[in-house]
Amino acid sequence: MRRRDFARQLKLIKLVVLDFDGVFTDNRVLVFQDGTEGVWCSRGDGMGIDLLRKAGIPAIVISTEKNSVVSARCRKLKLSCIQGCDDKLSVLRREAKRIGVPLKAVAYMGNDVNDKLCLRAVGFPVCVRDAHPDVARLAKYVTHNRGGYGAVRELCDMLLEAKR
Amino acid sequence: MRRRDFARQLKLIKLVVLDFDGVFTDNRVLVFQDGTEGVWCSRGDGMGIDLLRKAGIPAIVISTEKNSVVSARCRKLKLSCIQGCDDKLSVLRREAKRIGVPLKAVAYMGNDVNDKLCLRAVGFPVCVRDAHPDVARLAKYVTHNRGGYGAVRELCDMLLEAKR
Amino acid sequence: MRRRDFARQLKLIKLVVLDFDGVFTDNRVLVFQDGTEGVWCSRGDGMGIDLLRKAGIPAIVISTEKNSVVSARCRKLKLSCIQGCDDKLSVLRREAKRIGVPLKAVAYMGNDVNDKLCLRAVGFPVCVRDAHPDVARLAKYVTHNRGGYGAVRELCDMLLEAKR
Amino acid sequence: MRRRDFARQLKLIKLVVLDFDGVFTDNRVLVFQDGTEGVWCSRGDGMGIDLLRKAGIPAIVISTEKNSVVSARCRKLKLSCIQGCDDKLSVLRREAKRIGVPLKAVAYMGNDVNDKLCLRAVGFPVCVRDAHPDVARLAKYVTHNRGGYGAVRELCDMLLEAKR
Repeated sequence: MRRRDFARQLKLIKLVVLDFDGVFTDNRVLVFQDGTEGVWCSRGDGMGIDLLRKAGIPAIVISTEKNSVVSARCRKLKLSCIQGCDDKLSVLRREAKRIGVPLKAVAYMGNDVNDKLCLRAVGFPVCVRDAHPDVARLAKYVTHNRGGYGAVRELCDMLLEAKR
Repeated sequence: MRRRDFARQLKLIKLVVLDFDGVFTDNRVLVFQDGTEGVWCSRGDGMGIDLLRKAGIPAIVISTEKNSVVSARCRKLKLSCIQGCDDKLSVLRREAKRIGVPLKAVAYMGNDVNDKLCLRAVGFPVCVRDAHPDVARLAKYVTHNRGGYGAVRELCDMLLEAKR
Repeated sequence: MRRRDFARQLKLIKLVVLDFDGVFTDNRVLVFQDGTEGVWCSRGDGMGIDLLRKAGIPAIVISTEKNSVVSARCRKLKLSCIQGCDDKLSVLRREAKRIGVPLKAVAYMGNDVNDKLCLRAVGFPVCVRDAHPDVARLAKYVTHNRGGYGAVRELCDMLLEAKR
Repeated sequence: MRRRDFARQLKLIKLVVLDFDGVFTDNRVLVFQDGTEGVWCSRGDGMGIDLLRKAGIPAIVISTEKNSVVSARCRKLKLSCIQGCDDKLSVLRREAKRIGVPLKAVAYMGNDVNDKLCLRAVGFPVCVRDAHPDVARLAKYVTHNRGGYGAVRELCDMLLEAKR
C-alpha cells in the first residue's frame, strides 16, 4: 500500500476493536498456586487509549476467554469489553452495527489464529509484531512493538497523528 | 535427519509428554514473602494444547517437583499431570503403556538434566531453545522459541501440520 | 553539549525529580483478577537513591496517577512522593520552591508525553532509553538503561561521580 | 589467568557464598499495593544448588537487606542465610571460619557496590554478567548468564565439572 493511501485509510477509522491477550499483554499469564491469574499490561497503552477517547475514537475489547483479569484491566481503562465468545466475528459485526460504524471503518488488532476471521472482515487489520505467523500475513499493518510492550499505543499514536 | 524422514516421524507421534518448569515456563519462579509461588505461562501454549486435543493427540505433564502451581495450570489446560516423581522415566513408561502407545511414538519435551533419561527413551526427543547444554544434545528437535515463550505451541503446530 | 559543560551542569544539580511509571518501572503493570496491581522495580535503583541521599542530594517523585503501589515503593526508598496531579509542572515548581532550588538546578527524569512540560522547564531534562519518541527529543541526556532496569541508578551514579 | 590455573583454582573451592538480589534474581522486585514484595528466581539455579550439596560443597547466602522473601527462597533451597548485615565482610569471615574454610578457598558471587569488600577478600570472586561496572572489574570470573537467569547454576556447573 502506498504511503498516501495508508494515511487516507487511517483517517477513515471510526472504531478500534482489540483482542486482549497478546495485544494488551505479552500473551503470558502469571499463574498462582491457588489458580488465580495475573497479566502484565502497559501504562503507555493505557495512556494511548485515553488519548484516543479524548480524540473521539471509541475502542472496545473482544476476548475469547472469560477472565476477570480482562474485566479488571478494561474497567480501569474505561473500555467496553465483551468476553467469553467463541465466535468473535459475530460479536464484532454486532458491536460495529450497534455503534453505527461499517466494518471497513474498523481497525482490528489481534495476535493468534482465533483472530483470523475478524482480521479478514475489517478495513484495517493490524497484528502485533510477535503474532502467530499464520495471522501476521492477514494484517495490513504489523506493529513495531510487541504485544504488551506498546503495540496498542503505537496504533493509537498512528490514528491520532492521522487525525491531526 | 532428512526433511522427509522428519515429517514421517512427526506423523507417527501418538502421545506428547511434557516437563513443566522450563517448558511451559521460562524456568523462573516468582517467590513471595510468605513462600508461595507463581510462574509465567503462555496463552499461546494453552491454545496449542487445545488444538492438539481437538486433533486427537493426547498430552500429559510429568514434573519432578510437587507444586500446586503445576496442578493449577494443568487443570486449566485440562492436562493430566503426574508430579513429585524422582524417577521420571518409570512414570513415562507406565503412562505410555496405560495409554497404549509405544515409546517410539512418544514426543518428549524437556529442558534440564533430570529429563535426560526420558529424552533418550522416546522416539522424538525435543528440547526448548534455552535448555541446559548437556540436555540439548539429546534432542532430535530444538524449538526456535524459548520455554514459556511458545516452545509448547511450536511443537503442537508441527504435529498439527504433519497430521494435515 | 561539550563534555566539560556537561560535567559542569551535573555539578549544579541540587534536586532530582522523578516520574514513577516508566522511570522506576518498565512502564508495565501486573494486573490481578481482583483489580489490584503490582509493578517491577530495581534494587539497583533503590541503592542509587540511597547513595544520593547520603551525598546530600534530595530526590522526589511526581506521578500523574494516584496509586498505592507508588506510595509503597516510595515509602521503602524514603522518597517524598506527590501523586494524582494532572498538572505536574505546577507541582514541580511548588516543590522546587519549597526546597529552595531554582528550576535550572533541577534534574527531571520522565518517559511519556505527560512529562513534556516538566522536561522543558528544568535545567537538566533526562529521559529513559525507552521513552516515547516525542519526549526523548526534549532530553539533554538519554539513559543507556531502560526504565526499571537501572535508568534511575545511572542518573544517580552520574551525579555522584560529578560530585566527587 | 591461564586455563590450567583456572581449573586448579576451581578444584580448591570448599565454600560458595552468594549475594541474593541480583545474583539469585535479576535485581528486580515486584512491589504490591500493600507493600509486600516478590522476586523472580530460577528453577535451574535451584537444581544447581541441589547438585552442589550432593557433591559436598556447602553454599550460604549473605544479604544486606532483611527480607522475608530471601528467607522464603533460601528455606526452599535448604540454604543457610544471613540477612540484615551492613558489614558483609565480617559475616563472610565469621561464617568461613565457623565452617572451617580459609577465604582463599571461598567463591563469592555478587553484583553491586556493597559486594566489593567481599569480592576483594576471597580466592575466587565472581560477578554476574550484568553486575555494576565498578564491581565487575573485581571478578576473576564474570558469568555468561545474567543474575536470576542461571548465573548461580553456571557457577555450580563449573565447580561440579572441576570436581569430576
